[in-house]
Amino acid sequence: MKAYLKNIRQVVPYTPGEQPKQPGIIKLNTNENPYPPSPKVMEKLCQIDRLRMYPDPAVTELVEAIADYKGLSKDQVFVGVGSDDVLAMCFMTFFNSGLPILFPDITYSFYDVWAELFRVPFQTVPLDQDFKIVPEDYKRPNGGIIIANPNAPTGIFMPLDEVESIIAANQEVIVIVDEAYVDFGGTSAQCLLARYDNLIVVQTFSKSRSMAGMRIGYAMGSSVLIKALNDVKYSFNSYTMNQPSIVLGKASIEDDSYFKNTCESIKKTREWVKKELRELGFRFPDSKTNFIFAAHESVPAEDIFLAAKKENIFIRYFKKPRIDNYLRITIGTDEEMKKFIQFLKNYLDER
Amino acid sequence: MKAYLKNIRQVVPYTPGEQPKQPGIIKLNTNENPYPPSPKVMEKLCQIDRLRMYPDPAVTELVEAIADYKGLSKDQVFVGVGSDDVLAMCFMTFFNSGLPILFPDITYSFYDVWAELFRVPFQTVPLDQDFKIVPEDYKRPNGGIIIANPNAPTGIFMPLDEVESIIAANQEVIVIVDEAYVDFGGTSAQCLLARYDNLIVVQTFSKSRSMAGMRIGYAMGSSVLIKALNDVKYSFNSYTMNQPSIVLGKASIEDDSYFKNTCESIKKTREWVKKELRELGFRFPDSKTNFIFAAHESVPAEDIFLAAKKENIFIRYFKKPRIDNYLRITIGTDEEMKKFIQFLKNYLDER
Repeated sequence: MKAYLKNIRQVVPYTPGEQPKQPGIIKLNTNENPYPPSPKVMEKLCQIDRLRMYPDPAVTELVEAIADYKGLSKDQVFVGVGSDDVLAMCFMTFFNSGLPILFPDITYSFYDVWAELFRVPFQTVPLDQDFKIVPEDYKRPNGGIIIANPNAPTGIFMPLDEVESIIAANQEVIVIVDEAYVDFGGTSAQCLLARYDNLIVVQTFSKSRSMAGMRIGYAMGSSVLIKALNDVKYSFNSYTMNQPSIVLGKASIEDDSYFKNTCESIKKTREWVKKELRELGFRFPDSKTNFIFAAHESVPAEDIFLAAKKENIFIRYFKKPRIDNYLRITIGTDEEMKKFIQFLKNYLDER
Repeated sequence: MKAYLKNIRQVVPYTPGEQPKQPGIIKLNTNENPYPPSPKVMEKLCQIDRLRMYPDPAVTELVEAIADYKGLSKDQVFVGVGSDDVLAMCFMTFFNSGLPILFPDITYSFYDVWAELFRVPFQTVPLDQDFKIVPEDYKRPNGGIIIANPNAPTGIFMPLDEVESIIAANQEVIVIVDEAYVDFGGTSAQCLLARYDNLIVVQTFSKSRSMAGMRIGYAMGSSVLIKALNDVKYSFNSYTMNQPSIVLGKASIEDDSYFKNTCESIKKTREWVKKELRELGFRFPDSKTNFIFAAHESVPAEDIFLAAKKENIFIRYFKKPRIDNYLRITIGTDEEMKKFIQFLKNYLDER
C-alpha cells in the first residue's frame, strides 16, 4: 500500500436518491417540486451578467431579501449552497463540546454522515412506535440537538410547544431545527428566535421554492450565531454563492404569490393522494410535507417499489431497520399522482 | 458568558479583496478577468431549465467536458465550487498524517486558514530573497505539500523540472500544485500525472475563463485520489454544483478559441504594462499571471495604493512582513491599464 493512502480520510459517503435521466418517467423519489420556479425567476436568468467578477462574498442582496421577507435583521440570516451546506457549516461551527449531539434514529440520513466527517460524537434517539419524536428523551446532557420538523422521511410535524420544550430544556447548547419541508403545512420555529438565542432554524429553496437545481439554503438565528457561521464560511470558501444563485434566489423571494399558490397546489394534491392511498390499504403518518411515508397492509414495500420502477415510476425505498416496509412517495402534479394511483390499483388488483 | 458560546469554533476568517460597488471604477485588485465569458456561455444562460430538480451529483457533463479537453479519463477529474472549495476538500481528504504540511511563507493566503480550520499542522517555508520557491527546502519529513505555480502574489512560475523534483522527493505524501494562474504563460504539471500518483493539480474557471462569478474549480489526479475527494464531497454536500455552473462550465470548455484569444490579449497587455512600469521606476519578478507584483524604487507601496484609490483605481496592497512595499496589480483591458499608467505618471511626477 502506498504510504500516502494511510492518511486519506476514510468516510462512508451519503447516497443521494437515484437521478434517472431517461425521458417519460414519473419521478417521485427525491422530494423535488413538480412545478417550475416562478416565471419571474426564469425571466431573470437571461439578465445575469458580471460573471467575470467574483460574487459578493456577503451575498448581501439575497440575505437582505430573505431577512426582509422573514421580518429579521440581515445579521440574523446566513445563506449557503443548499441547506446541506448550511447544516454542514452548523455542525462544524456549533458542535465542538465533546459531548454527544442528539438526533432521532429515523431522520434525514445526512446527520450521522456530517457527525462522522467532523468527528462529532452523537447518539440517536429512537422515535416512538408511531414514528413521533418524544421531547422528554432530549432532556439529558448533550453537545447539541438537531431535529427535522416536519421530520423526514416520516412527514410528521411536531407541534411548536413540544419543539419549544426541547429548546427550553437545552439552553446550554445549540438546538437546530431543520425545516426543509415546513412550507407544506407546518409552522416555523422562527417565532421562537426572539425568546431563545440558542436556536438555529434552517430552511431551503429546494422544495417549496422549486429550486433544487440552484442550491440555496439559509439559517436564521441570533446575530452572534450567524456571525460565527459566517466566520467559519469565510475560512472555508468566501464565495460559495454564485451570481445566478444570488439573482434568482432574490427573484424567488420577490414572487410570493407564485410561491404560495404552488405550495397550496401540492397540499391539495397530497390530501387527495392520502385519501386514495387509504382506500388502497396503505397506512401512513399524517404528512405535512411534499411526500407521504406509507406502508401497505399486506404487500411488502420493496415489491411495490420494484414494480413501480418497471413502470417508470420512481419512488424511494430505504432498506433500513424499522422503516424497511415503507415507501416515501413525493407529491407530483395531479396528473402524475393519478397515474401513480392507477398503477397501484392495477398492481394490487393483479397480485 | 452563555454556555453554548464556549463550544463555538473560533476561527480567524480569510479577508477577501475589497469589492467596491460604485460604477466607474477601475478594478485591478482581485485578479478578475477584464473580458466577459465567451458569448457562447452567455447564450446558454437563457436555455437553463430543470431548476426544480436536483443537479446531477456527479456533475457528469462538466467532468466529462473537462476530462475530454485535458485528455484524461473522467474518473481523474473532480469539480467544486471554485478552486477554494476543491482545495478545502483536498486539505480535509489528504492531510491527515499528523505531520506538518509545507507551503511557502508568501503564497495564497487561504492555505493557513484551511490548515487552522481543519486542524492540520503546518510549517511555512520562506521564499528566497527573489521571492522564489527553493525546491531543496521541501525535501524533509512532512504531511503533504501545497504550492501555487505560478505563485501568488509574486506571479513567479517555477519551471516544471523543479516542481517534479519536489514531487519525486515526496512520494509518501500528497503534493498539490495549485495552478489558478497557469493559463497566462505557465506550463501545467498535468503532464506529470502519468508518472506520479501522489500528485493533485488544481485549476479554476475564475481567472482565465472569466467566470469568477460562477464558482467553478477542478482537481486532476489519479482515480484513487479523485475517488477519495468525491467520497468526502458526498459526505459534506452531494449537490455542490448548481445547474447553471454545470451548463455554463461546459459551454466555456467548448469555446476554446475564445479562451485562448482572451488569454493572449491579457498576456500582450501584461507585457506592455511591464515595460511601462519598468520605465516608471518599478521593479517586479517576471509575471506569468494576470497580475504584476511590483515595488517602486522610492515611493512606498501604501502611498501609491491610497492615491490610486482616491482616483477610483483599486489595486491590492498586503500589509504583511516582507511584502509590505509591494502592490499586486491585476491586468485589465488595454484602456484600463493605459489609465492606470497615466495615473502613475501624474502621481509620481507631482510627488
